[in-house]
Amino acid sequence: MTEKFDVAMLVGSLRQNSYSGRVANALIKLAPPELSLKILPIGGLPFYNQDLEAAPPAEWVAFRQAIAATSGVLFVTPEYNRSVPGVLKNAIDVASRPGKSSVFNGKPAAVVSQSPGLLGGFGANHHLRQSLVSMNMPAMQAPEAYISRSGTLFDDSGALTNQTTAAFLTTFLQAFAAWIALITKPKG
Amino acid sequence: MTEKFDVAMLVGSLRQNSYSGRVANALIKLAPPELSLKILPIGGLPFYNQDLEAAPPAEWVAFRQAIAATSGVLFVTPEYNRSVPGVLKNAIDVASRPGKSSVFNGKPAAVVSQSPGLLGGFGANHHLRQSLVSMNMPAMQAPEAYISRSGTLFDDSGALTNQTTAAFLTTFLQAFAAWIALITKPKG
Amino acid sequence: MTEKFDVAMLVGSLRQNSYSGRVANALIKLAPPELSLKILPIGGLPFYNQDLEAAPPAEWVAFRQAIAATSGVLFVTPEYNRSVPGVLKNAIDVASRPGKSSVFNGKPAAVVSQSPGLLGGFGANHHLRQSLVSMNMPAMQAPEAYISRSGTLFDDSGALTNQTTAAFLTTFLQAFAAWIALITKPKG
Amino acid sequence: MTEKFDVAMLVGSLRQNSYSGRVANALIKLAPPELSLKILPIGGLPFYNQDLEAAPPAEWVAFRQAIAATSGVLFVTPEYNRSVPGVLKNAIDVASRPGKSSVFNGKPAAVVSQSPGLLGGFGANHHLRQSLVSMNMPAMQAPEAYISRSGTLFDDSGALTNQTTAAFLTTFLQAFAAWIALITKPKG
Repeated sequence: MTEKFDVAMLVGSLRQNSYSGRVANALIKLAPPELSLKILPIGGLPFYNQDLEAAPPAEWVAFRQAIAATSGVLFVTPEYNRSVPGVLKNAIDVASRPGKSSVFNGKPAAVVSQSPGLLGGFGANHHLRQSLVSMNMPAMQAPEAYISRSGTLFDDSGALTNQTTAAFLTTFLQAFAAWIALITKPKG
Repeated sequence: MTEKFDVAMLVGSLRQNSYSGRVANALIKLAPPELSLKILPIGGLPFYNQDLEAAPPAEWVAFRQAIAATSGVLFVTPEYNRSVPGVLKNAIDVASRPGKSSVFNGKPAAVVSQSPGLLGGFGANHHLRQSLVSMNMPAMQAPEAYISRSGTLFDDSGALTNQTTAAFLTTFLQAFAAWIALITKPKG
Repeated sequence: MTEKFDVAMLVGSLRQNSYSGRVANALIKLAPPELSLKILPIGGLPFYNQDLEAAPPAEWVAFRQAIAATSGVLFVTPEYNRSVPGVLKNAIDVASRPGKSSVFNGKPAAVVSQSPGLLGGFGANHHLRQSLVSMNMPAMQAPEAYISRSGTLFDDSGALTNQTTAAFLTTFLQAFAAWIALITKPKG
Repeated sequence: MTEKFDVAMLVGSLRQNSYSGRVANALIKLAPPELSLKILPIGGLPFYNQDLEAAPPAEWVAFRQAIAATSGVLFVTPEYNRSVPGVLKNAIDVASRPGKSSVFNGKPAAVVSQSPGLLGGFGANHHLRQSLVSMNMPAMQAPEAYISRSGTLFDDSGALTNQTTAAFLTTFLQAFAAWIALITKPKG
């Protein structure tokens, strides 16, 4: 029987019908048997403020518990001003604290960035990766996922219709499943 | 008579008595006659969501107007996970939209990062700078401001007591005043 | 009479008929009357090694003098491994030393990156910009120049045939001329 | 019997008695039984130029073969102008080509940066990490290694005398040995 990995997806856009949300939904449909992908909402998380740790907001607690229960984290993000949207960075800040007990620590991660233009969210993608280092999240390196011209890939209902992208995302998810298996498998 | 430039300071930490807040307060006190520095609060800004632009939240509108009325922007920030805190990135995302009428466009900017450790918030500093490019904010390059060991620079009341840092910040602000004058002075 | 600015172009590829070289040649042809662009060769510069500063290689000395004589620097670069090619970074390292007398100090700069793919050399572009900060080179922020699909823009002789790109580069150079004028014009 | 991993160290400074070289020598002495560290010289590699691939320089061929024979790569680097020294970036460019047969592909990697100042080469460290992504080199995330005030850590002979640094580097190498074992161990 195949082992099944639960993966949390954090989506960097709050817009309804956002391209990032559409990519995330496509990923759910394309997931191989080894992966179970689920979007964790981040729009209701209060801004990180260390003063609140004495009595952390219920939203923080629930979010951290949800992350803790997963085997990996998949970031799906647009690029805002050549970097990660504030709402997504805030979710990262919340999940990564308090320091000694970060629920991100050691969890395998992967990044998909997208943009309606050509650049595919490269700036957001790599800013995110810089954060993964200090949070000790082993990051899948290849394949890199920069989804360009995201506005042309979906039909009106939001379903992915571009077959090249579908094939690429399938390959990406297979690689991520293998990455999670590699990072989390028992030693020797 | 000296021209006076109003400068908005955006502070990346919400914590009371935060080191970034202390640095910002020190900057206010050290400002040369050409600069009037004021902290614009960012903790009450709803997360950026393009769907809301049809009827933008009052907090967004007021924040954008406050930025529009200034001659420059000074970012004072800690580093969260080797990047910009979500709350500060969100303020940037809000101010930069909608695209064609960004209140940041053309405004001279400078960055001060700080950390309690040695690294001085380098990662946050340069991620911020990458955003300044696409927002067309002419960025002061020198002096770079990475404030290390920020926990050792203030007394219990939060006043800056380290004289080397005070001298450095004074120089920094003089350079920023000159930078604003250079960027905004009339042609010919 | 229009003031004329001499600008040094540093090209990040050594390949004959490289796309970066073609972009640089197109820029020369498209330059407005205020700019005189010239490529400074960098392939013959010995690797930077501080031990050699006691008796700097003739190539270093000549290169530094050539930079010193210009009014601005324009970087034209491909992306190697998501960053600046070694040969271009070495030229930067050479020009920026020794520290106290860097010929780059204060010189206005701009960056054009290109790639045969979609991403337009974004990674190289922004890594370069990070270096510009510490070298105190005021960097033009807008327009950003990420030239995508560079393999489709030229004819067999290497001449730029894509009119959209030609128009964009013309605008870019006009903006750079204005940027140099702004940064270097005498105070008050 | 313990498996032994051969690791190539690429050192970013050509200066005799450089701090990076001293760190590399200290790493050799501190290596755990599972690691055999060796410095691969990079100062004699001709600049990367794709035109030369038809008949690649002997130095390139030997360097690529030496990398191919290792089980991992450890980068030890100073920071030049907030980024990777040209000489080290060139070595990376050489090893990573030609694309389809890169000897870096899949090799586990780690990064140590150092500076005589406080910042510990953060800028070089993360620029390097951005390159590791596209070269598909699984990068060890923790512990991060930013060696500050490197000028104070060694005696006149170049031997590491700072015990805190020695203990840290020992931990770092143990983690790297475990990382190589994890990444390279046979599936199932």
